[in-house]
Amino acid sequence: MSAQAYLQEWKQEVETATRRLIDASSMPDRLFQSMTYSLEAGGKRIRPALLYAVLDTYGRPRALGHEAAVALEMVHTYSLIHDDLPAMDDDDVRRGRPTNHRQFDEATAILAGDALLTDAFRILAHAELEPVKSVALIARFSEAAGSAGMVGGQLDDMLAEKRAGVSLSTLQSIHERKTGALLVYALEAGAILADTPLADRQALVRFGKHLGVAFQIQDDILDVEGDEALIGKRVGSDEGNDKATYPKLLGLDGAKQALEREVTESEAALAELSVEAPRLRELLDFVVQRNH
Amino acid sequence: MSAQAYLQEWKQEVETATRRLIDASSMPDRLFQSMTYSLEAGGKRIRPALLYAVLDTYGRPRALGHEAAVALEMVHTYSLIHDDLPAMDDDDVRRGRPTNHRQFDEATAILAGDALLTDAFRILAHAELEPVKSVALIARFSEAAGSAGMVGGQLDDMLAEKRAGVSLSTLQSIHERKTGALLVYALEAGAILADTPLADRQALVRFGKHLGVAFQIQDDILDVEGDEALIGKRVGSDEGNDKATYPKLLGLDGAKQALEREVTESEAALAELSVEAPRLRELLDFVVQRNH
Repeated sequence: MSAQAYLQEWKQEVETATRRLIDASSMPDRLFQSMTYSLEAGGKRIRPALLYAVLDTYGRPRALGHEAAVALEMVHTYSLIHDDLPAMDDDDVRRGRPTNHRQFDEATAILAGDALLTDAFRILAHAELEPVKSVALIARFSEAAGSAGMVGGQLDDMLAEKRAGVSLSTLQSIHERKTGALLVYALEAGAILADTPLADRQALVRFGKHLGVAFQIQDDILDVEGDEALIGKRVGSDEGNDKATYPKLLGLDGAKQALEREVTESEAALAELSVEAPRLRELLDFVVQRNH
Repeated sequence: MSAQAYLQEWKQEVETATRRLIDASSMPDRLFQSMTYSLEAGGKRIRPALLYAVLDTYGRPRALGHEAAVALEMVHTYSLIHDDLPAMDDDDVRRGRPTNHRQFDEATAILAGDALLTDAFRILAHAELEPVKSVALIARFSEAAGSAGMVGGQLDDMLAEKRAGVSLSTLQSIHERKTGALLVYALEAGAILADTPLADRQALVRFGKHLGVAFQIQDDILDVEGDEALIGKRVGSDEGNDKATYPKLLGLDGAKQALEREVTESEAALAELSVEAPRLRELLDFVVQRNH
């Protein structure tokens, strides 16, 4: 099977689990509609894929990871809903459909985001796991998503957009938190659930960090040279504003070299695992070769 | 000591714990400023007070409850920040100071709320407790705060404001979730931490439900006849709009009788505890006798 085929499988796993774990009967219908509108908007489900790929790699059942995978997708989705708000990026369209606040209204979008975030912890806390594992999953998840992780990265990104001359290290620190933290968490959650040796868990975290940077550089490169129809936003849309990107700071060739280095580091981390990890390697290839 | 004196003690406990548990060094300074601006805005800290009062009642150290108390206040604070946003209640002033989005900006206020909510789970997950207790605290907390609790109640409240003829049962269902759920959680968290017998935990939950309704009816009565300088908002401000309140649905006398019934039920719940609970009784008196 190819990475594409596995991605399709993992995507179905998390989408089926999401429908099972979100309880429509316990909440106002409008809230349910708004939450599921964005949850079901599709996307590659990269975070759940990374988590399931770790479980596959260690021969553990995917069912172990459903709650953590759904929680990851819920938190990723809430962050997109809030980022799209008029006070933030003010986006009208995401994945070819009206953004949540355009489809519903701003207040509903704010609350749908709040509910997705809170309910993600509810779902994770109700997973049938040894309590010590649940606590570890929740502790690391909240670190990755909170002020020291995703939210902090988002705030710094917003501040950086307002000023010129953002350095490479600032750009990296923003991406590490804004998008990298949840990618790393997906791998670490897989390691916790699969009971990997500690050295493997550390190597998976390192793999996640380099994969996250590679993912971002590839995003920036696609924005310069990608096919507009495939990536769903105007190509070059980062260029018109002052937003710092890898190609702007390093030149297009420099960005491609940086991408190559991150791929090499990612592969080195995988080589340290106590097991073969072909699915993680294929996911890496997919991330850096994707054209959208 | 009087309820007032205990409230002062509990307030200091949670405020000291908050300063200790929020780590300024791990987040952008602007995010820290915005989060602490609203966290330190004061208030009666009723939720932490209820939790500490349960620990006091069962002779358990307050230090057991610091993380849960701080998490409660963080989630309450995030809900106020998001409720005040232009797309929601559009309030410029809270507790005599500019609301968070007026003091900072809307994007920062949204992110400060998101971070307070996420970090509340981080702090709770890092409490040094038996893992099974941590999981129970987190599971119940996320239920109380999420789509089935506070966020769902807030969305229904918003929808109810737009239409006339809200029934008493709808009004109660909204308050039970919007404000009641976190009050009940404060008591239940105290019971979990104090290892009370199950019957005591159930009685504390029942106490919390009636206390929550009493709290809300008293709020509505104060809005009709309170002293403007004390409550800090225009007296009668609920009257000008179509907002459903207990006095509007039951008349002022009817509301006062309903309040009396809730107090009686609250006292009955306390009488069922396996221990004497003078501090919880005083907190109840404080809630229904307060003039602001």
